[in-house]
Amino acid sequence: MSLIVQKYGGTSVGTAERIKNVAARVAKNRGKGDQVVVVVSAMSGVTDNLIKLAKEIMPLPNEREMDVLLATGEQTTIALTAIALHAIGLNAVSLTGAQAGIVTDGVHTKAKIQNITPKRIHELLDAGNVVIVAGFQGQTIEGQVTTLGRGGSDLTAIALAAALKADLCQIFTDVDGVYTADPRIVPKARKLNEISYDEMLELASLGAKVMQSRSVEFAKKFGVVFEVRSSLNDNPGTIVKEETTSMEDIVVRGVSLDKNQAKVTLVGVPDKPGVAARIFKAIGDANVNVDMIVQNISHGRGTPATDISFTVDKPDLLKAQKVIDSLRAEIGFGDVISTDAIGKLSLVGVGMKSHTGVAGKMFDTLAREGVNIEMISTSEIKISVIVELAKGEQAMRAVHTAFLG
Amino acid sequence: MSLIVQKYGGTSVGTAERIKNVAARVAKNRGKGDQVVVVVSAMSGVTDNLIKLAKEIMPLPNEREMDVLLATGEQTTIALTAIALHAIGLNAVSLTGAQAGIVTDGVHTKAKIQNITPKRIHELLDAGNVVIVAGFQGQTIEGQVTTLGRGGSDLTAIALAAALKADLCQIFTDVDGVYTADPRIVPKARKLNEISYDEMLELASLGAKVMQSRSVEFAKKFGVVFEVRSSLNDNPGTIVKEETTSMEDIVVRGVSLDKNQAKVTLVGVPDKPGVAARIFKAIGDANVNVDMIVQNISHGRGTPATDISFTVDKPDLLKAQKVIDSLRAEIGFGDVISTDAIGKLSLVGVGMKSHTGVAGKMFDTLAREGVNIEMISTSEIKISVIVELAKGEQAMRAVHTAFLG
Repeated sequence: MSLIVQKYGGTSVGTAERIKNVAARVAKNRGKGDQVVVVVSAMSGVTDNLIKLAKEIMPLPNEREMDVLLATGEQTTIALTAIALHAIGLNAVSLTGAQAGIVTDGVHTKAKIQNITPKRIHELLDAGNVVIVAGFQGQTIEGQVTTLGRGGSDLTAIALAAALKADLCQIFTDVDGVYTADPRIVPKARKLNEISYDEMLELASLGAKVMQSRSVEFAKKFGVVFEVRSSLNDNPGTIVKEETTSMEDIVVRGVSLDKNQAKVTLVGVPDKPGVAARIFKAIGDANVNVDMIVQNISHGRGTPATDISFTVDKPDLLKAQKVIDSLRAEIGFGDVISTDAIGKLSLVGVGMKSHTGVAGKMFDTLAREGVNIEMISTSEIKISVIVELAKGEQAMRAVHTAFLG
Repeated sequence: MSLIVQKYGGTSVGTAERIKNVAARVAKNRGKGDQVVVVVSAMSGVTDNLIKLAKEIMPLPNEREMDVLLATGEQTTIALTAIALHAIGLNAVSLTGAQAGIVTDGVHTKAKIQNITPKRIHELLDAGNVVIVAGFQGQTIEGQVTTLGRGGSDLTAIALAAALKADLCQIFTDVDGVYTADPRIVPKARKLNEISYDEMLELASLGAKVMQSRSVEFAKKFGVVFEVRSSLNDNPGTIVKEETTSMEDIVVRGVSLDKNQAKVTLVGVPDKPGVAARIFKAIGDANVNVDMIVQNISHGRGTPATDISFTVDKPDLLKAQKVIDSLRAEIGFGDVISTDAIGKLSLVGVGMKSHTGVAGKMFDTLAREGVNIEMISTSEIKISVIVELAKGEQAMRAVHTAFLG
């Protein structure tokens, strides 16, 4: 008898019919004698509607009240899922985040799980129930309703799997697993059987939309092996786990393209100590997250000057430009050139640690395609380049062919 | 400084715009320096939609899960109402039934309030907040979500007013108060300035839809004076309170017509001890509520036999007929005549206790109108008659004119 935690996202529970499908899938596992904990999200569209309703009343609603409001979405789904299990003859009990013993800090709308007391879940499982837990939500020690922010239901599932010492954690979604690249862009992309936490983290941070980084980080920290798989079929998914030696044989695990980046270049920045620090401290103070930074070598005559380029998330571009403008008098740079017509193309693979020549092969591939590289950034298991947005998908296909066939 | 409990029903909070109106009304009271506790229902239509969704999955869903499901309706409204108060600059905090300290028994979908610990509400009020409490819901001592059944939000408001020792309890609804009769049927009906608990109870049990009996009973038991008034205007409403001597000067407070009744007549029932008991025990065992019972005097030749008529709620008619059929062999009666084409017309007034001639005047009025009386039932403060449904409204208008102008 195994203990399985299964998480179903908003699309998988989007209608009464789909909730019945979830119940049927759970029943299969129960039929094998497994204990099952089901974590569900709000039905697709529900959370957005609640947010819209709140914003009709006030553009920037209070975060404590948003948590009270949004927590109703998952609470609705747990009850309906329990009813769907009853309908096919299974014993099932729903639990809100609070009832499931999920205690968080008090940072509303993006609370962190502090601890989970799974006593009640164990009791209900041992009494023969499927236990349905509301994802995305918890409660402070003082009894305030909290939510965990984007990707919160995945986090609930992985944290529960850790707390319950589950044998298996399955994240059901609307794709078959993690792919070598987005199949909508790269038709030759194929599903991976396994991927390491670190590779998954790089892919998540690079804009591959399968899961949020924080859930993967949590899984890595607590050693929770999980499977990403489809709720629409019975295909095996992708196992996400600590890297093994055999994984290093594969140099490149996947290719990603992040179109949500924008680039700012400051031309003619005085080349003296402390200037870069001043710029990026000001941008950080404005809560703008900087991804890549490139400082070119000094050039020109007269006062030594340099060009500094950096990338930010597209929605933060205006804010970043404002910060830069406010620094002009103080620092005295020349032109500021911004563009959001860029894409960040990345290769990810733990095998890069022990293989050389990956960067060279990537740059060569791009050169042959006539794709200009505007910025480069590397880590132990990743190489990212900024390219012209219009050529991003073509570049991605070429690089995928070169490394992954 | 007064402490006021205000309850707003589903229509009053049915849209974002209406929730803003509620906030504006609350702000007026805060402007006078009053402390305000607001109890809200689910937005109109929300509860019905949730029930529909659950029944799509299973016709008779589990009641514990229905409570988890339905409690989301009020939880949504409290958050939106708090946000609406923030939007106009007031401090406000929402509380679920559980957070407000409302402890109930464990009878899901129709739980009874066992006690209220209003400590947290008092603290929040004293800190300058409007406190918004989810109506209709509570929590068992073990932490199970419960709901209070029909009219539950009124009950929450009145119970909170008692627990908080509020100075005033206002039930906002979509009518101006309690009327001498339903104005849609009796155009001359007028709003009452005050009414006693007992009169209100009789009107509620007679089908006047303003409030459920249980909330009025609770108010009577704990001496909570409350006002029923409209959320759509500033007209004063109807005060509901313990009867005073002056109230008895008014013989008839109101007239009601209940169209939700059906009548069953058993012809030729053997007139011997124990037969009526056998019949009504069987009907009671089937959970069918019998309202009026009339047994005519024996007639006919041969074995002494009698006719027995009784009324039940229309939806229970089929069930009652089945019970009667099952008794036929055992008891041996003749025909069974059923009809749901009846109306129960009632006069209510505490003044009847000390005034004579009310029944005579009522019967005389009906006779002049050519309305036949099929059954009669009386209490200290009420006279009810069963009449032909088609003549019910005409009869109601005539009786209203005779007693109330």
